[in-house]
Amino acid sequence: MKFVGFGDMLISFEPVGYQRLIQANTMQVNYTGAEANVCVNLAQLGVKSYYVGKVPDNDIGRCALANMCKYRVNVDHVAVGGDRLGVIYTEKGAAQRPSKVIYDRKNSAFTTSTLADYNWDEIMAGAKFFHFTGITAALSDEMPAILQAACDAAHRAGALVSCDLNYRKNLWSVEKARQVMQKLASSVDLMLANEEDADKVLDIRAADSDITAGKLSREGYAHVAEEIHQKYGCRWVGISLRESISASDNRWSGMFYDNGTAYFSRTYDIHIVNRVGGGDSFSSGLIYACMNGFDPQKTVDFAVAASCLKHSIEQDFNLVTLEEITRLMEGDGSGRVQR
Amino acid sequence: MKFVGFGDMLISFEPVGYQRLIQANTMQVNYTGAEANVCVNLAQLGVKSYYVGKVPDNDIGRCALANMCKYRVNVDHVAVGGDRLGVIYTEKGAAQRPSKVIYDRKNSAFTTSTLADYNWDEIMAGAKFFHFTGITAALSDEMPAILQAACDAAHRAGALVSCDLNYRKNLWSVEKARQVMQKLASSVDLMLANEEDADKVLDIRAADSDITAGKLSREGYAHVAEEIHQKYGCRWVGISLRESISASDNRWSGMFYDNGTAYFSRTYDIHIVNRVGGGDSFSSGLIYACMNGFDPQKTVDFAVAASCLKHSIEQDFNLVTLEEITRLMEGDGSGRVQR
Amino acid sequence: MKFVGFGDMLISFEPVGYQRLIQANTMQVNYTGAEANVCVNLAQLGVKSYYVGKVPDNDIGRCALANMCKYRVNVDHVAVGGDRLGVIYTEKGAAQRPSKVIYDRKNSAFTTSTLADYNWDEIMAGAKFFHFTGITAALSDEMPAILQAACDAAHRAGALVSCDLNYRKNLWSVEKARQVMQKLASSVDLMLANEEDADKVLDIRAADSDITAGKLSREGYAHVAEEIHQKYGCRWVGISLRESISASDNRWSGMFYDNGTAYFSRTYDIHIVNRVGGGDSFSSGLIYACMNGFDPQKTVDFAVAASCLKHSIEQDFNLVTLEEITRLMEGDGSGRVQR
Amino acid sequence: MKFVGFGDMLISFEPVGYQRLIQANTMQVNYTGAEANVCVNLAQLGVKSYYVGKVPDNDIGRCALANMCKYRVNVDHVAVGGDRLGVIYTEKGAAQRPSKVIYDRKNSAFTTSTLADYNWDEIMAGAKFFHFTGITAALSDEMPAILQAACDAAHRAGALVSCDLNYRKNLWSVEKARQVMQKLASSVDLMLANEEDADKVLDIRAADSDITAGKLSREGYAHVAEEIHQKYGCRWVGISLRESISASDNRWSGMFYDNGTAYFSRTYDIHIVNRVGGGDSFSSGLIYACMNGFDPQKTVDFAVAASCLKHSIEQDFNLVTLEEITRLMEGDGSGRVQR
Amino acid sequence: MKFVGFGDMLISFEPVGYQRLIQANTMQVNYTGAEANVCVNLAQLGVKSYYVGKVPDNDIGRCALANMCKYRVNVDHVAVGGDRLGVIYTEKGAAQRPSKVIYDRKNSAFTTSTLADYNWDEIMAGAKFFHFTGITAALSDEMPAILQAACDAAHRAGALVSCDLNYRKNLWSVEKARQVMQKLASSVDLMLANEEDADKVLDIRAADSDITAGKLSREGYAHVAEEIHQKYGCRWVGISLRESISASDNRWSGMFYDNGTAYFSRTYDIHIVNRVGGGDSFSSGLIYACMNGFDPQKTVDFAVAASCLKHSIEQDFNLVTLEEITRLMEGDGSGRVQR
Amino acid sequence: MKFVGFGDMLISFEPVGYQRLIQANTMQVNYTGAEANVCVNLAQLGVKSYYVGKVPDNDIGRCALANMCKYRVNVDHVAVGGDRLGVIYTEKGAAQRPSKVIYDRKNSAFTTSTLADYNWDEIMAGAKFFHFTGITAALSDEMPAILQAACDAAHRAGALVSCDLNYRKNLWSVEKARQVMQKLASSVDLMLANEEDADKVLDIRAADSDITAGKLSREGYAHVAEEIHQKYGCRWVGISLRESISASDNRWSGMFYDNGTAYFSRTYDIHIVNRVGGGDSFSSGLIYACMNGFDPQKTVDFAVAASCLKHSIEQDFNLVTLEEITRLMEGDGSGRVQR
Repeated sequence: MKFVGFGDMLISFEPVGYQRLIQANTMQVNYTGAEANVCVNLAQLGVKSYYVGKVPDNDIGRCALANMCKYRVNVDHVAVGGDRLGVIYTEKGAAQRPSKVIYDRKNSAFTTSTLADYNWDEIMAGAKFFHFTGITAALSDEMPAILQAACDAAHRAGALVSCDLNYRKNLWSVEKARQVMQKLASSVDLMLANEEDADKVLDIRAADSDITAGKLSREGYAHVAEEIHQKYGCRWVGISLRESISASDNRWSGMFYDNGTAYFSRTYDIHIVNRVGGGDSFSSGLIYACMNGFDPQKTVDFAVAASCLKHSIEQDFNLVTLEEITRLMEGDGSGRVQR
Repeated sequence: MKFVGFGDMLISFEPVGYQRLIQANTMQVNYTGAEANVCVNLAQLGVKSYYVGKVPDNDIGRCALANMCKYRVNVDHVAVGGDRLGVIYTEKGAAQRPSKVIYDRKNSAFTTSTLADYNWDEIMAGAKFFHFTGITAALSDEMPAILQAACDAAHRAGALVSCDLNYRKNLWSVEKARQVMQKLASSVDLMLANEEDADKVLDIRAADSDITAGKLSREGYAHVAEEIHQKYGCRWVGISLRESISASDNRWSGMFYDNGTAYFSRTYDIHIVNRVGGGDSFSSGLIYACMNGFDPQKTVDFAVAASCLKHSIEQDFNLVTLEEITRLMEGDGSGRVQR
Repeated sequence: MKFVGFGDMLISFEPVGYQRLIQANTMQVNYTGAEANVCVNLAQLGVKSYYVGKVPDNDIGRCALANMCKYRVNVDHVAVGGDRLGVIYTEKGAAQRPSKVIYDRKNSAFTTSTLADYNWDEIMAGAKFFHFTGITAALSDEMPAILQAACDAAHRAGALVSCDLNYRKNLWSVEKARQVMQKLASSVDLMLANEEDADKVLDIRAADSDITAGKLSREGYAHVAEEIHQKYGCRWVGISLRESISASDNRWSGMFYDNGTAYFSRTYDIHIVNRVGGGDSFSSGLIYACMNGFDPQKTVDFAVAASCLKHSIEQDFNLVTLEEITRLMEGDGSGRVQR
Repeated sequence: MKFVGFGDMLISFEPVGYQRLIQANTMQVNYTGAEANVCVNLAQLGVKSYYVGKVPDNDIGRCALANMCKYRVNVDHVAVGGDRLGVIYTEKGAAQRPSKVIYDRKNSAFTTSTLADYNWDEIMAGAKFFHFTGITAALSDEMPAILQAACDAAHRAGALVSCDLNYRKNLWSVEKARQVMQKLASSVDLMLANEEDADKVLDIRAADSDITAGKLSREGYAHVAEEIHQKYGCRWVGISLRESISASDNRWSGMFYDNGTAYFSRTYDIHIVNRVGGGDSFSSGLIYACMNGFDPQKTVDFAVAASCLKHSIEQDFNLVTLEEITRLMEGDGSGRVQR
Repeated sequence: MKFVGFGDMLISFEPVGYQRLIQANTMQVNYTGAEANVCVNLAQLGVKSYYVGKVPDNDIGRCALANMCKYRVNVDHVAVGGDRLGVIYTEKGAAQRPSKVIYDRKNSAFTTSTLADYNWDEIMAGAKFFHFTGITAALSDEMPAILQAACDAAHRAGALVSCDLNYRKNLWSVEKARQVMQKLASSVDLMLANEEDADKVLDIRAADSDITAGKLSREGYAHVAEEIHQKYGCRWVGISLRESISASDNRWSGMFYDNGTAYFSRTYDIHIVNRVGGGDSFSSGLIYACMNGFDPQKTVDFAVAASCLKHSIEQDFNLVTLEEITRLMEGDGSGRVQR
Repeated sequence: MKFVGFGDMLISFEPVGYQRLIQANTMQVNYTGAEANVCVNLAQLGVKSYYVGKVPDNDIGRCALANMCKYRVNVDHVAVGGDRLGVIYTEKGAAQRPSKVIYDRKNSAFTTSTLADYNWDEIMAGAKFFHFTGITAALSDEMPAILQAACDAAHRAGALVSCDLNYRKNLWSVEKARQVMQKLASSVDLMLANEEDADKVLDIRAADSDITAGKLSREGYAHVAEEIHQKYGCRWVGISLRESISASDNRWSGMFYDNGTAYFSRTYDIHIVNRVGGGDSFSSGLIYACMNGFDPQKTVDFAVAASCLKHSIEQDFNLVTLEEITRLMEGDGSGRVQR
């Protein structure tokens, strides 16, 4: 099974432990990106995963690709050019102090992408799924056209298209996001969102939900999914449901909408190691399940178990195996030592 | 706004993570001190903060001052002399194992302080608050006189005086502490205490309170504050209320007494990164609020929110911004990622 | 008081923090082993502790012994020979992700042990307790005979014998384990087990207990102990009772059976730093208590308090003092800073 | 004595030890810049040092300034604005493998500087020296005008102006550099250069010198200095003379031209810890000597001794004391332990 | 261009810096092997490099392969099975103290290799070079037959065969090595050796050479190569020439024999970062040159420049680019910073 | 063979690599002391080594002893009491920058030693050598009497006494040192000195020697030894001869005087990892040689080879084996990898 993800990669710097940036003499280095994360997550599960993007012709660009290769992601279709890899600084939060992210990603190599950089029909040949996020759409004025071309090629190749709305207020305005994403939405087979995205990008709200307070209404989300399906024709809708008790403790579940019904997973109480990449791992789980024809309830159970485990792992990738996800999905979350 | 803090600084060594001292091949280094912490905390909030003390004329003394300067604390009035900077070793506790502190601070440069080392009238010029703790008072026989001179100069300059009783049994006896501190108390405008201090130093107890068991009585503490106000004429009293579930989890709140009324904050359930410096950050919060004329309820809410955040931060300083404190004080403790 | 432990040692590698093996550029190194852990734990409490085993004649073997010596364990009776020290790789789990252990211990120096390697009568002279685990028994075909010789010598010297069943499915089959251990059991004075061991090795089950679900029945365990006592003549039985909420949070208690009665400790809610070595520290606690003639209730209270603290400590040794255990046993688990 | 430096700061990432970027999981973080280095170096010698520049209004910008403050550099005149702090990645070379630097500094906050950002007359009040480098001049089209204004204000305030040509081929062309720098040169009192700069920027060459081969001709350099003096009216010229044996071993000396005569220092054989910042430390040494009216021979001896020591220090700052420089300048380079 | 390397991989542990094993609390982890090193080195130069071997079906085996993938080496033909990845412990030497290596590689997964594990004709399809070392030949009794099959398939596919004698006294006796390797030698097109190997494995000695004393005779080595060519029909012979001044400083050169003539490179004085992998990088350089039809002098110059650079790089891989090798080969070893 | 060393231990903090103290966020921790180093060095060679001293009854004191135990040094006769373990801060020098040591050792537990703390006759029973240094003698007014008692008991037990003059100007004046040490000298069988000590403590100078310039005269040193022998009756004299090229490179040799003749070792050119403890390792080598009755030439060759190797090892202990010393002494300093 072949999967294609398209998006920017960044070099990520993070102080060790719970230090703030000003305390750090050394930082952990990683290479990340929303779609790159999904590529890695799926490669861990045995999917032939292709990352497509554009990196600068320097050692930092090469490091980003080496990190993809390490985790068995194919980078043969990555374009090379532009000046720089974007940078992201992350402080890990704890207790009542939230994690904090500082972006320095403007003018990245990826933002210089043109239609000519990617031969989509060649790239999509044999693919079963193509994935992108709203972040990619926001990165340049030419991106929406490139994404549309990719979606069209994906469909021509018989692949399904998944999109995580992933609204980022520092990248574009709600207005711009709505204009671009609502148009792309019609090409999407599996639409992924969290509680903020649906509201801001698709202008669809769950009733009785207060994000900051962490209250969620199951009925409201079923309604949101139904509306997305009706309005944009997306076959499936996935919504991750995060209740933030604090930066250290979250409650985590998800919903999967298929054919008029909303399926909910159980809820996990998670003591968090690192929540960044949690949404991407939920996307990966749903894509894997859809690729493998799981039934709807198993689909959401699988995606939520997978992404629950992500919260226990350092950095942004969900480095877990099928066996580990399955064990949790089947009920063993006791954390007893595996020898 | 200008603030002056006066006390000793120590070089602090702490094994990485939850190692015990015997396991450590490397240790984290920091430069700390009760009043120095308050200086740094206030400087983070934009206050012109002056640290006053005495360090040895060697690289360790200079390192201590460099660390103050890094966090924007003025060290122009620090005296230089004596032999050594005191040392403190800390093991971070977890679960049922408490943090453990070993002091090696005798004969520090600061303990050689004489009245001649500090020109208090010059130092206090323009100051709005002067702060010291019971630790400083305990460090030498000449200290009480130096502190009295400082308090007098502060009042002459129109500054208010705050004092954190901060009783340390390894520094002096209860009798000595009572004798010295009860005399200094009459010069204090804002008296800070936790549950042990009032009992041991001022001989005032909250009824129905059992520190080890972690039970606290709101009425009892209001009564303690009233008594402090009556007995020593302190205008304000601040009491931090810590319920220790374990070394990893505490419940945290505070009380502020003003003009006959005790104001209580909400209580935070904190999953602890590092609790050392928690009391100092509560002091800092109250001082900032008093300096800025917050109303009494906002005063305690601000100080408790600030010090709640301290528990999520490595080392002893409360490296948070006004905006972060305000966000928590206004109710968002959900720890959602800030992008 | 003299104690003798007999078993293999391994070099242990563990990624820093919660990294998975594939993410690690550096790993923490330790030298460990079930009986070696007990030796160290008892040495911390002032017992004259002797570790007996066999290590290769190379720097890795010498490092293992140096680590014992550091913690005041005598290694004078350790045999030298064979090719290698076994290796163990550990990933620390968190939340719903369990810790994972990969063994590479086949053909270790210890497995080449012969009866001629150990002069048991000399070794046991003056000993009060001899300890081994089921792991040792599983490591070679000659081991059961060596262990029987050791037990006999121990009894000749007036020492008591303790055995932790410690079943490891990757070392031997249930059938082999039962055959070997049930025979050795008759030489055991203090039998230690957790919920799995009794079932798999002794074929004795607590009614109404479901390990994965983490449910425990006090009555069931009392029954198990009674049966062990009846069947094998073990004077004492100790059972650690772990309820795994997740890899981060466990509930921990224990039972001690003496003279027809089962004594239970209180239960601790533990936020885990490292649970590896938890069972060994429970054994150590019981052995210490039996060596010192504590009454049965104090015995189990002491062992559970000691092993509760182990969960707060990095690596596999229980580096705590008598005073720390006593303070917790007497009720102070509040984790307040010790200055 | 007051000193003013003006230029950009960058966040610097460097793998630990001699790792290449692709091998690094963690990197050392520093905040650096040619002029910032000079500011810190002079502050270490007791000069009242002012760093002037522009940083973004985010935590990374604040970290850069905190690092200046730590080393006692005043940042009161730093402008705030723009989007980002520039980034620099450095691999430390060894033996025949050169150090490698990757710049990602385009569009830094500093490049958005306008004349309005800096009140030069206020900044220069009381200053004795103003320093900038060719890097600053290259960073935007508005920079030359800002620099000219700064030089004029410096002279109005009675300060001298020093300039390190510091040609960087990745920042601008030789043509552009010549056009800008030759114009600014007339405002420079102390011109600093290494062997490449004079050639490329001022079009002045030392005869018989082959940089790659590491051969240097004393007469040639005296001639270069004379020509700079003649052509641009610079009172003093300083030239650092580096013979690169390898990335690990260099020979280091310098020349100082004053009033028609070229003064040469002795030559140091240096086993290098870190050569980055070596040129800046030579500039700092000359500026300090000129500020203090050292005679010409002592001037170059001081600057070369200071910058020789820089090569033994991690990161870019020359963290040495007057006493250490003096001891080396007076002949003790034996490296015997100082107790 | 396709390259195939066949051999074992090991997990390598090394204390940080110059610590001895007994001092290390943490160790650096790497995955290495003589042929694996050559695979990575060639992949860095753009060669399509295939690593062939056998790893256990556990996380350690997967880590080894991930490390190959990171550096762009194909692992599609790696067999999976057996129990363990071999372990190697390395202490880095300095000055008069040599580096020290402790092997624990017996019974590795690779040693369980059978002819059936590798489909050599499929593997060799399109290959230009096949490489193995004497280490591989020594690892099991079945290895020589597997290697012969690989060499035959290589020749059938039109590939050339290179072999590094790489004698290891702890793996086999001189007699066994001679018996096996002299037979395989007839299938070798490019024979690689250092001064010890030719002596011990092929029984051919350079006159007037004393390895310990570090004296080398050019004529002697030419004679050795000629004899290898005559006796075994190897077309090319490469000999690395290392003069060990100390563990910190070596002199390094090489010889390449082609068609009756011995070509010598220049000699580099190297201040060593890490010499492990130096021989493998010399092999890689010669193979690359032969693959690309370099003339004989350029061949040895390239290989020696490449392997000179290896000594400046941490761990065992030669992570350098064509451009970096070429720059050194063309004479720039001055180590000047590359910006 | 039993050895006894008597002196203070300190906790030592050292920044990683070549950082200065002000740059360090973490420091390496070690427990050290001149005599403790000799104890460890001899234990590595198989000597039954006893460290005698006094440490505080806290975790830091216990850590110091644990570190002795790790390296197989007996601590049964260590007294416990006093307040603190002394502290030492070390910056590692490089190139022209010397290492720098800051002592904070006043009022250490050891300085509170009284005659009653040590039962010398019991301690010396069976000993072959007793060792102390001038540092110990300097630490309190009661020390000379304690040392005299120790020397007398040693001689009563048939042990020889060695003393390293080890003059430290920050501990006492030349006058005081001369008064105390010249008296103790008469009890010394093996007197150890470097070039400074003989001059300052014994008032004996080598002609034609200039320490700072690093010039040494063999004849001069022979004369110094002869004089020590004549004046104080010391049977043997050992003098280490260090020529400091820089902090990175030293030339190292030694002299041993026996029965009217001065024996000189060869000279080693050492590229230094860490020179601290070099003198102690020379002492250890001589003591070992004298204990084992080596002939005079072998004695000095052994001691110099041993201490040469020390310079390649991190921290203060000489962690080398007899085999490693012998190999170097017999001429192999080529640093070729030991597999």
